[in-house]
Formats: sequence, structure tokens, C-alpha cells
Amino acid sequence: MAITSNTTVGAEWIVDAEGCQPDLLRDARVVRGVCDKIISDLSLQVLTPELWHEFPPPGGVTGLFLLTESHLACHTYPENGVATFNLYCCRSRPEWNWAEQLTRTLGARHVNVMRAERGAGASKAADQFIRMHGGGDR
Amino acid sequence: MAITSNTTVGAEWIVDAEGCQPDLLRDARVVRGVCDKIISDLSLQVLTPELWHEFPPPGGVTGLFLLTESHLACHTYPENGVATFNLYCCRSRPEWNWAEQLTRTLGARHVNVMRAERGAGASKAADQFIRMHGGGDR
Repeated sequence: MAITSNTTVGAEWIVDAEGCQPDLLRDARVVRGVCDKIISDLSLQVLTPELWHEFPPPGGVTGLFLLTESHLACHTYPENGVATFNLYCCRSRPEWNWAEQLTRTLGARHVNVMRAERGAGASKAADQFIRMHGGGDR
Repeated sequence: MAITSNTTVGAEWIVDAEGCQPDLLRDARVVRGVCDKIISDLSLQVLTPELWHEFPPPGGVTGLFLLTESHLACHTYPENGVATFNLYCCRSRPEWNWAEQLTRTLGARHVNVMRAERGAGASKAADQFIRMHGGGDR
């Protein structure tokens, strides 16, 4: 069996927010506001014009940002009450408080966060699995 | 403790290719060719102009595609011999042979693939962890 190297090239936060308010997930301004806050709070730098797409109802919105630090992607699913985020950073960044922020801005009932170290073998992703709960049941 | 729902909104393949040939990772045409093949082989639809950025040496390239099916992201790190991919699909797609393809096109020695079910709680990501080895030691 091949030996996997320990070369880490960055960290990725893989975030699922569930039980969100559908009207907020349909509102591109709200979703863009969340992404802008992530970028601002973590001092990330957007390199090219961001990409946005609004899907026809009952669909949500998608946003993609190409960053100096790698990328940020967001998809919303109003029909499921779900918003997902991927934040991939090739330089060390503080932890963002996903649970608190997404509960406040999108009405999320539960926020699950997985952090994966990239380039170090997918096993590291599983090793570093963490789970956070935000908001509690309503 | 809040109960996490089982709402799945898509699957994501989180792929790290290690031990790649640095000159191939620096070549935007080569990297773009890999992304184009993923999109073509899986019949994915690109919705907006793709985003590409070439970082100054010793950096690599970044590509982002906003898809009808969600998104594809690629980053290369010639200085580390690493290429990473995220393919996020909100409709069922066949498995792509990441190990074989990235060994052939980028000279990868090892290819690690993790599949995460999105929107179903990050625990599913860990549950569905799979690891694939490609190429073997040289």
C-alpha cells in the first residue's frame, strides 16, 4: 500500500446549516450578506469577480468566490431549509463562529461543521471531524 | 441536544492528489483539461463563465466552475506536488475514477477521495469516508 505524505496545503471548513428559514435562503441579498461577513471577519481577499446564480423557484442561490486564500462556496436549498458552505483557506485563519452566525442570519436550527486538512490525505479529514450544534430546537 | 435531520441536498467528492509532477500543476492548460474532462465525463453543465487564476511562481492555479449541479473547484500547489478538487453535485452522478485519471494526467502518486453527503449533518461525511490509492510508489 502506498504511504500518504503529510503535506498539508490548507484547511477546509465544510458546513451544513439545517432548519433555516426558507424565505431567507431565497433572498440573494441575505445570503450574499453572510458570505460578505465571512470574508470581512476573516480578512479574506477576493481575487476575481464573484459568481452568483439564482435558481428558479423553489430553488435557492449559489455563490462562488475565488480568494487569494483559495475559495468560498455557498449553496442554499429553501425547499429543504438547508444552506451549505465550503471555506477553503491555504493560510491559517481563525475559526469563524458558524453556529452562532448562521443561527442568527439564516435562522438555522442546527449547524454542522467538519474541518478537513487538505493535501494531507483524506484520513486527516475524518480524524479532524468536529461537530457543532447551534440554536437548539425551537 | 438537537436532533439533526436526514435531509440530503447533494454529494461532495473531496479529493487530494499527492506526489504530482510540479510542471503539470503549473500548466493551466493541463489543469483546465482535467476539469473539462470531469465536466464532460459526468455530463455536468457550467452555468456562468468559469473563474481561473494563475498565482505567481512558485504558486499554482485555481479554477472554479458554477454548475447547474452545484460546483467544481480545483487548486494546485506545484511546490508541494499537490492538487485538490471539490466536486459538489446536487443530483446523482456516477463515481469518477479520480485515482486513475489523476495518476494519468497529473502524475499523482496517491489520490485520496472522501465523499460527503451534504445537508445531512457532517457526521454522514465521516461515516461515508472512503479512501482510494492510485498509482502506488514509484
